[in-house]
Amino acid sequence: MTLPEPSPLRVTVWGENVHERRDEQVRAIYPDGMHTVVADAIREHLGDAVVVRTATLEEPENGLTEEVLASTDVLTWWGHAAHDDVSDAVAQRVQEHVLSGMGLIALHSAHFAKPFKLLMGTSCRLRWRNDHDRELIWTVDPTHPIAAGVPQPLVNAEDEMYGEHFDVPAPDELVFVSSFTGGEVFRSGGAWKRGHGKVFYFRPGDQDYPVYYQPGIRRVIANAVAWARPSRAERELPGIFRADVPAIEAAALELAATDGVASPA
Amino acid sequence: MTLPEPSPLRVTVWGENVHERRDEQVRAIYPDGMHTVVADAIREHLGDAVVVRTATLEEPENGLTEEVLASTDVLTWWGHAAHDDVSDAVAQRVQEHVLSGMGLIALHSAHFAKPFKLLMGTSCRLRWRNDHDRELIWTVDPTHPIAAGVPQPLVNAEDEMYGEHFDVPAPDELVFVSSFTGGEVFRSGGAWKRGHGKVFYFRPGDQDYPVYYQPGIRRVIANAVAWARPSRAERELPGIFRADVPAIEAAALELAATDGVASPA
Amino acid sequence: MTLPEPSPLRVTVWGENVHERRDEQVRAIYPDGMHTVVADAIREHLGDAVVVRTATLEEPENGLTEEVLASTDVLTWWGHAAHDDVSDAVAQRVQEHVLSGMGLIALHSAHFAKPFKLLMGTSCRLRWRNDHDRELIWTVDPTHPIAAGVPQPLVNAEDEMYGEHFDVPAPDELVFVSSFTGGEVFRSGGAWKRGHGKVFYFRPGDQDYPVYYQPGIRRVIANAVAWARPSRAERELPGIFRADVPAIEAAALELAATDGVASPA
Amino acid sequence: MTLPEPSPLRVTVWGENVHERRDEQVRAIYPDGMHTVVADAIREHLGDAVVVRTATLEEPENGLTEEVLASTDVLTWWGHAAHDDVSDAVAQRVQEHVLSGMGLIALHSAHFAKPFKLLMGTSCRLRWRNDHDRELIWTVDPTHPIAAGVPQPLVNAEDEMYGEHFDVPAPDELVFVSSFTGGEVFRSGGAWKRGHGKVFYFRPGDQDYPVYYQPGIRRVIANAVAWARPSRAERELPGIFRADVPAIEAAALELAATDGVASPA
Repeated sequence: MTLPEPSPLRVTVWGENVHERRDEQVRAIYPDGMHTVVADAIREHLGDAVVVRTATLEEPENGLTEEVLASTDVLTWWGHAAHDDVSDAVAQRVQEHVLSGMGLIALHSAHFAKPFKLLMGTSCRLRWRNDHDRELIWTVDPTHPIAAGVPQPLVNAEDEMYGEHFDVPAPDELVFVSSFTGGEVFRSGGAWKRGHGKVFYFRPGDQDYPVYYQPGIRRVIANAVAWARPSRAERELPGIFRADVPAIEAAALELAATDGVASPA
Repeated sequence: MTLPEPSPLRVTVWGENVHERRDEQVRAIYPDGMHTVVADAIREHLGDAVVVRTATLEEPENGLTEEVLASTDVLTWWGHAAHDDVSDAVAQRVQEHVLSGMGLIALHSAHFAKPFKLLMGTSCRLRWRNDHDRELIWTVDPTHPIAAGVPQPLVNAEDEMYGEHFDVPAPDELVFVSSFTGGEVFRSGGAWKRGHGKVFYFRPGDQDYPVYYQPGIRRVIANAVAWARPSRAERELPGIFRADVPAIEAAALELAATDGVASPA
Repeated sequence: MTLPEPSPLRVTVWGENVHERRDEQVRAIYPDGMHTVVADAIREHLGDAVVVRTATLEEPENGLTEEVLASTDVLTWWGHAAHDDVSDAVAQRVQEHVLSGMGLIALHSAHFAKPFKLLMGTSCRLRWRNDHDRELIWTVDPTHPIAAGVPQPLVNAEDEMYGEHFDVPAPDELVFVSSFTGGEVFRSGGAWKRGHGKVFYFRPGDQDYPVYYQPGIRRVIANAVAWARPSRAERELPGIFRADVPAIEAAALELAATDGVASPA
Repeated sequence: MTLPEPSPLRVTVWGENVHERRDEQVRAIYPDGMHTVVADAIREHLGDAVVVRTATLEEPENGLTEEVLASTDVLTWWGHAAHDDVSDAVAQRVQEHVLSGMGLIALHSAHFAKPFKLLMGTSCRLRWRNDHDRELIWTVDPTHPIAAGVPQPLVNAEDEMYGEHFDVPAPDELVFVSSFTGGEVFRSGGAWKRGHGKVFYFRPGDQDYPVYYQPGIRRVIANAVAWARPSRAERELPGIFRADVPAIEAAALELAATDGVASPA
């Protein structure tokens, strides 16, 4: 095949890990942190095709050193209470790695995470209510690989509500749209290409609810990780080229060297 | 200004006018036909800037002769019970006029109208239930002129439900997304460019409910008509050009004739 | 992995096969027909991952019976001199199979092929000149799988020129843009989703030039075939669902049956 | 009409004004600065419908105080030699005003201007050569208001070359594509919505050539200014709403207050 998948895909699951340590209610749901549950979801679905590690805010350089990112094919991100504690240098480093080819999956309140905002360029503001809404997640792009095997609708038992208007650039591909008990709607699964990398935002997952244990939610996250794998072998920014030789001259040389076109015989 | 609006905009409101004649319940809501109420909504908002006439299925050539279309800037379309009774010739004529610059506003069950399907190229299938759902219509593109002055959300008191998946090409601009009492969602306002013309689909308006009397719904329809006005003076298909003279030769002649560039002095 | 590729991918290469039989010049370039060379290009790159057969206009039902299409994952199409000789029934059959999941790769003058026009909904008109232009094909979406391994630019030694304006819906993904010796430009590689299927248009390949022997062109066609493979197991149109049970009621039943959410333990 | 245009539109033309002061060659072309010529182009086409002022890098706060931006409907930006001399605070202020509704027209080397990069989220890198290429600017979206009255192609006599790959998010609307003498291509006119504002990038205009005196180029800039006018009365960021009252409850109250729907009589 022309497009062999990297084997195994190197995934880093980033968790803020603040609520889990300070809020008893959250710790009861996620005793080892939300990131461990997200990591398990990815392993569960992608198996030997991935190697998954975790990183958290409290680690040096927020756990995202140049070395970590350089060896990460896809990064997932969950943060909420401490967006500002992520250093600007780390946020820019993540942005640069995405533009250079790394995939990024932003989960729930990561709509306000520094790297996501840098990549979107917008306020990423939205409507919200934390009151046990039931969410129905509808697929609007049934051919998209992130929707593969996802029920129509995918039922999220209870969660914080996010509603429109969600101030992001119109997604290159809109995959999911949600409704909530309260009647609000949200573009809950959107895909963007940025530089050499891919970004997917997936809405569910407030820390107060056991969202990331639900099978359908786990399936979407794993699908998104597989989709966001780098498409190029090298990790590098799109180039800035000083093209002193006009393309038509280079093409003429190339054609001369190859005898114009391959011949039928 | 560079873009004077045509004055007045010539609007034709097409109504199937079948339910209104045969179903007592519908006639009670729309005694003079749905098309007359839609036409009034457009006049109410656009006033002297428009001249609105109506046309219906039972007229010769379904009311859409070449002469009628040639003098129509924007056509609105509502049909449901008798899509197949629109002649293929008329459907193709409407398609050709849209590709040549005429605007088209497809309302509710016109998702299955022949001209809309020809312009989309897809099945236009969807999920539905006619059971008095309340619809909340959320703006997801707040800068779009069709959303100007529209409440967030726009409440549609009761109507048939349409739900995803809606099989249309991803809209060039997604303006509205709806939720329903039953928890379904729908991309209820989408815009597409086709050839020299513009198409907008707006979901509300089953014949069994007085939807087109509601102020917010009327506002959207009028906004859509204003948005869909032709952008070019002439009504013509995009061209097929045999360009025997290479563009660089034509450009050289043009530059020679104008002394290269205008000079500062 | 979540997304196993069908093995092997069943590809049908459709060729009009008119020029090759009646024009000596074309027969000299493509003695066994253009379709055989396109088929070889796909086999060359995709190897055991594909099974490729060919079909031509002169066969019964233009070679595209229901049985052939039902067993085709991706169809490639080249036609020019005899678009009108493809029966309307066959064209609609191809459209329906695409909407049901089959991939379609439209090559060069297939911009005017009946199935492509049905899927686009537009005139598909363009600018043209058959005068040995050199084409430079530039990748504008470097993460797209169809651009994988394609040189920047890809040099097409000589070919007919196609120039803008090309009257198609704005592609969901614009992959390639070409320039020509004469200074014209063209959106030469565009991707569209339609229903459950995917469509890619690739510009090069007039019959008067040995375009389909060039390695880079062959690579793009093979990449496109791999990209257009169906994303769903079944071949079926998007559904029209009468959803008598509101989604929130169905969701409540589902949640009751599964004890709400999976528990941490 | 539903959409009255603000009268007059308040335009600020920002010029870096570095080349014009230090490079004799540039001063010979633009003796009063490039910004004055751009300002004249806008006045020439939009006349009484606009009030145009200029601002430059060397002014306090780079000429873009909160007061200036708060009274600017559309900002045009040209910079090249001194992007880094624009303060981060000013760049963020411009970004916030765009997200709050102000239009932004980025010209030529402003692809690397801080505010444009913040709004795109990408590297904005490209291919280039400063060697008197002739540019042909082709309209690929003939219904777009920015293309109104623009020749096909628009000939730019000589200019720096910019070529693909241009690392920006895929434009919401791609309006122009250029070819150059050297055979390169470029997406030379792209439109993006960001927050409540609109952004247009237009490629031509290196300081070494009298590009902004050319009639067609001036027409495009003026069209873009008119297109980018704010669509909302107030200048404010998209909201972040804590929606304690579910939308369905608010809707029920609203419907009760208005007797459900307006009645036919």
